[in-house]
Amino acid sequence: MKVFAEIVTVGDELLIGQVVDTNSAWIGKQLNMIGVAVNRITSVRDDEAEILNAVDTALSRSEIVLMTGGLGPTKDDITKTTLCKYFNTELVFNQEVYDNVLRILAGRIPMNELNKSQAYVPKSCTVLQNRVGSASISWFNHKGKVLVSMPGVPQEMKTAMSEDILPRLKSQFNTDYIIHHTFFVKNYAEAVLAEVLEEWENHLPACLKLAYLPQPGAMRLRLTAQGSDKVILVEALQKVEVELRSILKADVFAEDERPIEQQLGEQLVKHGMMVATAESCTGGTMASRLARNAGASAYFVGSIVSYTNDVKMNQLGVKEETLKKHGAVSEETAIEMVNGVCNKLNTPCGLATTGIAGPSGAVPGKPVGTVWIAVKCNEKIVTRMLNYDHGREMNIERASNHAFFMLMEQLHCLK
Amino acid sequence: MKVFAEIVTVGDELLIGQVVDTNSAWIGKQLNMIGVAVNRITSVRDDEAEILNAVDTALSRSEIVLMTGGLGPTKDDITKTTLCKYFNTELVFNQEVYDNVLRILAGRIPMNELNKSQAYVPKSCTVLQNRVGSASISWFNHKGKVLVSMPGVPQEMKTAMSEDILPRLKSQFNTDYIIHHTFFVKNYAEAVLAEVLEEWENHLPACLKLAYLPQPGAMRLRLTAQGSDKVILVEALQKVEVELRSILKADVFAEDERPIEQQLGEQLVKHGMMVATAESCTGGTMASRLARNAGASAYFVGSIVSYTNDVKMNQLGVKEETLKKHGAVSEETAIEMVNGVCNKLNTPCGLATTGIAGPSGAVPGKPVGTVWIAVKCNEKIVTRMLNYDHGREMNIERASNHAFFMLMEQLHCLK
Repeated sequence: MKVFAEIVTVGDELLIGQVVDTNSAWIGKQLNMIGVAVNRITSVRDDEAEILNAVDTALSRSEIVLMTGGLGPTKDDITKTTLCKYFNTELVFNQEVYDNVLRILAGRIPMNELNKSQAYVPKSCTVLQNRVGSASISWFNHKGKVLVSMPGVPQEMKTAMSEDILPRLKSQFNTDYIIHHTFFVKNYAEAVLAEVLEEWENHLPACLKLAYLPQPGAMRLRLTAQGSDKVILVEALQKVEVELRSILKADVFAEDERPIEQQLGEQLVKHGMMVATAESCTGGTMASRLARNAGASAYFVGSIVSYTNDVKMNQLGVKEETLKKHGAVSEETAIEMVNGVCNKLNTPCGLATTGIAGPSGAVPGKPVGTVWIAVKCNEKIVTRMLNYDHGREMNIERASNHAFFMLMEQLHCLK
Repeated sequence: MKVFAEIVTVGDELLIGQVVDTNSAWIGKQLNMIGVAVNRITSVRDDEAEILNAVDTALSRSEIVLMTGGLGPTKDDITKTTLCKYFNTELVFNQEVYDNVLRILAGRIPMNELNKSQAYVPKSCTVLQNRVGSASISWFNHKGKVLVSMPGVPQEMKTAMSEDILPRLKSQFNTDYIIHHTFFVKNYAEAVLAEVLEEWENHLPACLKLAYLPQPGAMRLRLTAQGSDKVILVEALQKVEVELRSILKADVFAEDERPIEQQLGEQLVKHGMMVATAESCTGGTMASRLARNAGASAYFVGSIVSYTNDVKMNQLGVKEETLKKHGAVSEETAIEMVNGVCNKLNTPCGLATTGIAGPSGAVPGKPVGTVWIAVKCNEKIVTRMLNYDHGREMNIERASNHAFFMLMEQLHCLK
């Protein structure tokens, strides 16, 4: 059965742009994995009428409504009382929640009236405990549908979802299967890839949907299969996957929807290789992305971020002559950087970037967006120049992505 | 006049959680600056009925609807044709857009039918050119309201908003003033701060609203003033700002809503100081955040990310004895790290972190979440231990924030 969910995130901070809503994407991914499709995401202000309207229309369209936010102990947080109004119930004291608040405050923070107010919960809901925070979770069953109100703090929401809410939803709804398969494709602009795939795409079975997701430095193609018979879906997917591989051949770079740095980490572990980074324009972004994954110490040694020429020379051993002759943004400098960091940090693999992230800093012949990348894997070094300006943030992300892609490719060749 | 806007973001990738919607927060912030309040953010699938419904309800509630996404050249992108249906118009060829597509492809990518399709635009709209991409922007005037459809690629959307759409909106609508003022407050849990401020908050004038925004390591308090008379708003704000400062005194840490690393960069420039980072558990996150700001080279020299003990010893000069006696996660190691990086990279200021980000890696007496931070400013070193687990990602963010806060504080003392 097709089961639809909606996500309603509450908080003025989302609408004035002080906070980016990262909860919704995470929730969407998790719901997909249990076969629930997200129909809509709505962000509303901490305002009773707005919350009531969003809840009412969401429940009219979808079987499941997951809410985050507005559960703090302060005045601006009104989700709990608003839900009481919507479901025609009242707040009652709950000893178990009170004990949990005490445990979370852990003597570090005094119990006051506001913290105590967190122990008052809607009478008609099932209360779920928050293992990592003080705001409890309210689960409402309503005319065969479900509404769950969770805290907006990502770690609290994620823990409650994983440990409690997802298993409950899965057992309560008889859901379709939703299976995604993602291809990383290199060397193609979106429209050119679409032209190449047009004929094939026109003959995809009805249970499959294709999406193009450009990202800095690569294209992702996502195939989504949805239906009630898992065997049929898997067979249909596998068939078109084979077709797609035969059309795109070596331009299919990876088949995995996880972030590229996570895939790279896995490949490094598989080959028993350690990596270090030498970063100028990316300023530590490659290092932080590699270190973000749990277990990073299995493949990541460290980094030398050389934002100045002095650091390039003194820490990475880039020659003054090289900087003078070719400039800091050059293939020669990138190569000396990657050699330098691999020598210093004693790793077989290295990633180096040097470029002009912008918005200023252009020099004659080297416009903003110019980046030289050098990647080392054992004794082999490959280089690449990027020369297109997408704005500072994107230039940094794209350079990091390309360096990761280049090392992935080198590792593939080791097979 | 109170003018409300809604944001509608289109794309399956948002609903299945493959992409986080960062556009909405950015748009919300910009609209606020021209006095337009965002009422609601809605994300919908690439589905005609869903888009039509979202557009229709948004236009029924608000004067301005800004849309992003669904304008690519491939089949899954249907925003343009759907808007033609909604506004009862058709697609027509536009030579100016065609020329822009040619310019963007720049001979690097061939012009094919799909790219050419981007030159077809809704007949009844005003077409705005996309300076940094191939999809044009459609501006519809509709019964005194405005709907603008923009590409979802952040850089393209941001350029069009800044250069074209915001000035047009500002001249078309006679908007209220919306003024925010944000306080960074330290040493308070949310509920305790709210208790301290309760009396004061109860007497805030009607044009002012207060919000509590906890973030890892600090609380932000946001005062928002909205109304038609700028002088009255500014006076009201200034009065309560003075009151708040006198209540919270030295616990007000900064008064600025920009990211803490940007404020820190500014303070460093003001004092003519350069900074370097030595990072273990934060893995380059402090460096990448410091380097993210344009003009970072005015205060950021570089970083040594020492994920292993070898790098700590060989690159930062941490003594083997220190590691053996006190462990890598210790005050002593953090101090040697910060001294090491300041010596090596020749900076007066340094930030060092060493800790257990998790989820594994705990040792007896040092649970997951334990982080030692050492911050150096001229010859003075201050240290701090964090010892609470909020999950790997938050532990890393919180440690970085605390290090930034600590250096900000040191710089304040130099005044």
